[in-house]
Amino acid sequence: MSFQFSNRVPKSDSDPVGDILKVAGSPDIISFAGGLPAPELFPVEALKQAADKVFDKNGRSALQYASAIGNPDLRNQITQRMNRQGINCDVDNIMITTGSQQSIDLTAKMFVNPGDTVIVEKPTYLCALDVFKSYGAHIVGVEMDDDGMKMADLQQAVADNPNTKFIYTIPNFQNPTGRTMTAERRQQMVEIANKADIMIMEDDPYGAIRFAGDDIEPVKYYDTEDRVIYLSTFSKILAPGLRLGWMVMNKDLMPKYSLMKQSADVHSDNLTQYIVAQFMADNDIDDHISKIRNVYRQREKVMMAAIEKSFPAGVHYSHPQGGLFIWVEVPGDIDTIELFKTCVGHNVAFVPGEPFYPDKVTPGTFRLNFSNMSEDQIKVGIKRLGDAIKETIGVGQRAKVTEQS
Amino acid sequence: MSFQFSNRVPKSDSDPVGDILKVAGSPDIISFAGGLPAPELFPVEALKQAADKVFDKNGRSALQYASAIGNPDLRNQITQRMNRQGINCDVDNIMITTGSQQSIDLTAKMFVNPGDTVIVEKPTYLCALDVFKSYGAHIVGVEMDDDGMKMADLQQAVADNPNTKFIYTIPNFQNPTGRTMTAERRQQMVEIANKADIMIMEDDPYGAIRFAGDDIEPVKYYDTEDRVIYLSTFSKILAPGLRLGWMVMNKDLMPKYSLMKQSADVHSDNLTQYIVAQFMADNDIDDHISKIRNVYRQREKVMMAAIEKSFPAGVHYSHPQGGLFIWVEVPGDIDTIELFKTCVGHNVAFVPGEPFYPDKVTPGTFRLNFSNMSEDQIKVGIKRLGDAIKETIGVGQRAKVTEQS
Repeated sequence: MSFQFSNRVPKSDSDPVGDILKVAGSPDIISFAGGLPAPELFPVEALKQAADKVFDKNGRSALQYASAIGNPDLRNQITQRMNRQGINCDVDNIMITTGSQQSIDLTAKMFVNPGDTVIVEKPTYLCALDVFKSYGAHIVGVEMDDDGMKMADLQQAVADNPNTKFIYTIPNFQNPTGRTMTAERRQQMVEIANKADIMIMEDDPYGAIRFAGDDIEPVKYYDTEDRVIYLSTFSKILAPGLRLGWMVMNKDLMPKYSLMKQSADVHSDNLTQYIVAQFMADNDIDDHISKIRNVYRQREKVMMAAIEKSFPAGVHYSHPQGGLFIWVEVPGDIDTIELFKTCVGHNVAFVPGEPFYPDKVTPGTFRLNFSNMSEDQIKVGIKRLGDAIKETIGVGQRAKVTEQS
Repeated sequence: MSFQFSNRVPKSDSDPVGDILKVAGSPDIISFAGGLPAPELFPVEALKQAADKVFDKNGRSALQYASAIGNPDLRNQITQRMNRQGINCDVDNIMITTGSQQSIDLTAKMFVNPGDTVIVEKPTYLCALDVFKSYGAHIVGVEMDDDGMKMADLQQAVADNPNTKFIYTIPNFQNPTGRTMTAERRQQMVEIANKADIMIMEDDPYGAIRFAGDDIEPVKYYDTEDRVIYLSTFSKILAPGLRLGWMVMNKDLMPKYSLMKQSADVHSDNLTQYIVAQFMADNDIDDHISKIRNVYRQREKVMMAAIEKSFPAGVHYSHPQGGLFIWVEVPGDIDTIELFKTCVGHNVAFVPGEPFYPDKVTPGTFRLNFSNMSEDQIKVGIKRLGDAIKETIGVGQRAKVTEQS
């Protein structure tokens, strides 16, 4: 039979990032490709105890259909966490989702008509780009520097695109760059959104995993007109397999999100919501998060030292204060998909920059993850990567590098 | 701020069904409204044991990110179940979803451009209608009789709508009517779809819960050209809170569904997938299902006897051989939303017919659920409902009824 797909579906079946992750998953390869948290830190025993309690105390309720907006205990605990992080909200602003990915999907479905503009950081989270494309968005990328999105460029993008629905930003330890937006720019972003009467989708999966520098208030903290939708998730602070995230939003939006959520999957896994609520009641999740922070701090430090030692001069890289990622920029007109292939020959992997760009790709870029490999693997892997970069520059790009340096 | 929603979003915030279920949820009311399975049948202890094993043996894997298409063990077990039910498939045809609701949503997103036609039974599952509307579908309802969708009408609907993308059908113990499509019509439906080169979405949440009559092969069994997408779920045979469903589809569709699923929620809850796979490895789920069947058979019998005793003459109702629902048709031009209000005064509830219709509503219709109330509650509740119907017909409709009888 011949399938007639909707316009939302990509023409090609190719999944370059999936293919990269498949290659990177081979046991011989030291992979800095995925965005996987360190599984040895998952609180398996504490979650087991929480699950046992739920089955004993609330088994039948946890296994039954439940409310679309989520478990009230879990929403209460999230409200308290949000308040401690400077977000002024109550439980009626909180909705549970099947991970932040669903929060992004529901928000795009809710606001984006084909042709509407969504403004994003350039580069940005590749699966957010996939979602925006699937709803027919016109995606406009705004350049970043080490302080996050450039505000003059954002201003211009908003002015150039009067049909903008929202700005999508990852202010903390951005994926893929690891960069953090300054407090000043967060405030400016809200001012720009207020003036243009557009929304902001603040995606903050990594904010709690800060291992250096001082906390910065979320964009939502500066939100004077309740137009920022704040997203976060248990994926990086507890376990991604649970697929539980949450949104903080204007109360007026809750009825429509609730209907949309019912259409999407009725509600998120109720058993897991009960388990996480029980885990948070019985454990100090901040204690657990500080363990994650300590391990990631150390891994980032080891990766940074290895990069300094192994990468050739002229290669730039970000210095994240948290999160999971370092962004690398190799000088010259390097195709990092080719570099990836060379690296696989050296048994090391990363994600090339290309899929993170909404439009024009900056060549020579790629993303490194430091959360999922041991310190020893990081040392060996970065050495291999350095060798591969030298080989690539040496073979194809020596002249250009010399010109530039 | 002013929110500019996409065209997919209903203009009104009203959620009449949600409001009905809220009223029906009051502790004084005997509710035949929701579609909730009997929670006293949930295998809480066996699921707890399965969960403990998963935490002990596979905790870290179960809590980590996983494949979009689902856990391989669970997909294998589903494949075997499907084969036993007459569906010729292997594991590469199976994808796990966050409940059948997500299977419906992904399929509509995959195939329906605004203006494309989706053909449905009239009446049909109301949350499927919501999904189809959200993607801009032109929904065409086909009349049913006690043998399911009328094939001549289906033929006509397909001929009248050359832009039809698929037929959506619930062949077993349909929601809301409880009716079952005959084997002959299932085969005819496939022939009609083959001829017109359109797809069939076969939604089968209740098929395993047959308590009378003989099993009928699924529509997918008659599928000669691999154009039927078959959906089912653990909601009615295990527990709906887990939000786990599956799809059986043409292998060629798997790469696109996998990408779409990644965009929607990356993957379904991995911990719960592990738990259900472990439960199925350690327990005979068919044993469990036969317990459900026995209880529902008895409840349906009690409800049927109570209806015969309490409802006034001239009221028609379906005689389901399985599932959760009975469909009632009161003669005359009764507004069952008004009848619902009268019933709430009598402390009994149902879902009025209106939201199940894609277009013109058949007045006097409503849905009764028999799975979620005890036999005693069923006896008392149906008596109250009979009184409310008599009151309504007696007060407003006596003349009409007399004319018709």
